[in-house]
Amino acid sequence: MAETVRVVVDAMGGDNAPGEIVKGAVMAVNSRKDIQVILTGREELIRPELDKYTYDAGQVEVVHCEDVIETAEPPVHAISRKKQSSMVVGMNMVKRGEADAIVSAGNSGAILVGGQTVVGRIRGVERPAMAPLIPTENGVALLVDAGGNVDARPTHLVQFAQMGYVYMENVIGIRNPRVAILNIGAEEEKGNALVKETYPLLKACPGINFVGSIEAREIPHGGADVIVCEAFAGNIVLKLYEGVASTLISKVKESMMSSLRTKIGALLIKPALKQTLKSFDASEYGGAPLLGCRGLVVKTHGSAKATDVRNSVIQCVTFKQQGINEKIAQHISGKDGKNDQAYKRE
Amino acid sequence: MAETVRVVVDAMGGDNAPGEIVKGAVMAVNSRKDIQVILTGREELIRPELDKYTYDAGQVEVVHCEDVIETAEPPVHAISRKKQSSMVVGMNMVKRGEADAIVSAGNSGAILVGGQTVVGRIRGVERPAMAPLIPTENGVALLVDAGGNVDARPTHLVQFAQMGYVYMENVIGIRNPRVAILNIGAEEEKGNALVKETYPLLKACPGINFVGSIEAREIPHGGADVIVCEAFAGNIVLKLYEGVASTLISKVKESMMSSLRTKIGALLIKPALKQTLKSFDASEYGGAPLLGCRGLVVKTHGSAKATDVRNSVIQCVTFKQQGINEKIAQHISGKDGKNDQAYKRE
Repeated sequence: MAETVRVVVDAMGGDNAPGEIVKGAVMAVNSRKDIQVILTGREELIRPELDKYTYDAGQVEVVHCEDVIETAEPPVHAISRKKQSSMVVGMNMVKRGEADAIVSAGNSGAILVGGQTVVGRIRGVERPAMAPLIPTENGVALLVDAGGNVDARPTHLVQFAQMGYVYMENVIGIRNPRVAILNIGAEEEKGNALVKETYPLLKACPGINFVGSIEAREIPHGGADVIVCEAFAGNIVLKLYEGVASTLISKVKESMMSSLRTKIGALLIKPALKQTLKSFDASEYGGAPLLGCRGLVVKTHGSAKATDVRNSVIQCVTFKQQGINEKIAQHISGKDGKNDQAYKRE
Repeated sequence: MAETVRVVVDAMGGDNAPGEIVKGAVMAVNSRKDIQVILTGREELIRPELDKYTYDAGQVEVVHCEDVIETAEPPVHAISRKKQSSMVVGMNMVKRGEADAIVSAGNSGAILVGGQTVVGRIRGVERPAMAPLIPTENGVALLVDAGGNVDARPTHLVQFAQMGYVYMENVIGIRNPRVAILNIGAEEEKGNALVKETYPLLKACPGINFVGSIEAREIPHGGADVIVCEAFAGNIVLKLYEGVASTLISKVKESMMSSLRTKIGALLIKPALKQTLKSFDASEYGGAPLLGCRGLVVKTHGSAKATDVRNSVIQCVTFKQQGINEKIAQHISGKDGKNDQAYKRE
């Protein structure tokens, strides 16, 4: 059997905590023997939730934490002050090697800050990147960076490409994934100052299968497997995806309820349509890893349900068992000559 | 009767030129008496198209032009070399006041370059902005800037806000439109360097009803009427909108064709659904004006059909009759003290 992976689950993070979070953690351990979950948070709230389910007690541990970081708290302040919060306690366990990964549906900014300052970066990584999977026509694509660390430099973007490449190939299983840079035209001379500076670096970077620029229009059509961008642009892509999809889906539903005729039609279509819309729902694909951190920090969305939590935990297992961080470190270390030409050496 | 508005229609621009372009021009003159259309392009191709329709010959003029700017031509080169092209000839007519506006479905980059260098900017406008209307849950929003002039400065963005405000209020008829800046969080301290610098300027700018930051997720839900952003981000929003909507619509259609059962359901739903999807189709809303140019330059999309052309021409009439450029000049001129505080004086 593969080695057991120890995953902290922040039981207090997100809109549906602790109920759905605990449920998801139990679903994860019940689906595989090689997972051990450590639930951090208020024990008096977690235990009654756990008592609702049957599971192997050896696979679940509860670590009591007094504090909770709230959704609206300023991140830096929260991480530095609330040492006894479920998030910071969990991150410290990852830092000390007592756990391999942490999953949280809590305050995004705090996860980002904590990932960098508490858990820490992989040696050689200049900036970690939040990398959610987004649905496409035929599968998924990885968006790096879609977090809150804006105004990246070209060298950051090259590392995003390297980390994203390793992740898509090894965790998602896409062989030699196509890496593209988000741009406003397909031609090499297009783009803003950052893209123009980054493009030749990506072109010269070995081992990432760089396919050039991708226009936002082509992302949902599956034009690339790894989409490299600065976080401001990435965050816009991620959120607009959600916004357009949800608006359009609610419009379609509305039109189906507009008359008796359409209501009958809707009944006939419903099962097939539900399947379709599900395939375009970002939450099906686990959480977003904070690539470049030691250990693994995974952010699931604030409204995460049990299935999202389960998927995120299972993603951590693949991540650990595939040795992603070791592969990332190896990929990045081609650069230690502090010379862009060094990329070619790998 | 209102004054007649003279609109150049570039008969050679776009995938469906000249057939659909000429047809759209005729539809426009047949819908209103106060429009005169000047078709620029190869007369031997335009005349046979015109001969298919009945219209008041006094409302349509053809100006023969030898050259055509192709879709893939480098914009600056095309505009400076092809003086006898349908686009440049038309733009020069606007510059000289022989026409009030030009509509083109041709090379976007060339329209942008030509608008700035041939037609020229309104006095006081630092940079013109391409401002398409995008569909929302309950109507439309204006995205400024979604063109190709990236890396804008904060003062540009303030002018985008002012021009967008005037346009939405007077052309689209939204009273006191809500102006927001595209951002990655709702809080004032969020954002990249550009947004952080621009935010206080917008807050201090009178007469634009600034409502703060808008996250991309809220755009389709109708969170603002005017969305101010730098062109790189704006272009991503515009193209992702198209991409997600078209992917999702094709997925819905696919699921409806998956079995006999769903096919019957689809027949019942079709008319209502078609209406819904149409309301989410950007091409219904005419073209994108290049705000800040003297006269008016309108870009319709490359695949524009006759209806798009007609709508764009009619949009020009409203633009002219409402004196939008005079209103923009007035709005902008609050700034002639070359002092950001001057915004407060208006």
